[in-house]
Amino acid sequence: MLNELAKKNVLGNPIRLGIMIYLLTHEKAFFKDLQTILSVTPGNLDSHLRTLEKEGFVKIKKTLADRPRTIVMITEKGAKETKRYLKLLKEILNGI
Amino acid sequence: MLNELAKKNVLGNPIRLGIMIYLLTHEKAFFKDLQTILSVTPGNLDSHLRTLEKEGFVKIKKTLADRPRTIVMITEKGAKETKRYLKLLKEILNGI
Repeated sequence: MLNELAKKNVLGNPIRLGIMIYLLTHEKAFFKDLQTILSVTPGNLDSHLRTLEKEGFVKIKKTLADRPRTIVMITEKGAKETKRYLKLLKEILNGI
Repeated sequence: MLNELAKKNVLGNPIRLGIMIYLLTHEKAFFKDLQTILSVTPGNLDSHLRTLEKEGFVKIKKTLADRPRTIVMITEKGAKETKRYLKLLKEILNGI
């Protein structure tokens, strides 16, 4: 199972994993909220969100309601892949 | 807790985490074994082991007994930090 963990995976980065775990439990989030929750710089968060968007794990939308804000939403693929990765992590942790 | 996960950490890389999990349960390992268990290239494994050695998480020794081999051993610091990281992961996973 450790070879599964070591395999190249978009969720292998803790910041991206953190984003996806948050989205899994909240479905969507504002950019600003993610930044606060994860304590990351805007540039760093933006870069990881782009990677997740490219993989089809999240959708990113700009909204002008009230004031301009960026909303991040989890996709079906993103939810499925995150659950699969969390299952793997759980199996590994339970095996120790 | 997600900000703890997102924090820069030598164990944030899944290959390094895989190495440390293996060592935590086996104390030491041959380079060759780690390569097989994690399905990684020698160059890739070597690079991650150097990072772990630099952090004081593992000790690397060459042995000439029988034939030249590289042995990787977990340090007290490595074991402590890995346990701490696994505890964090468990807490996060239990919270979902």
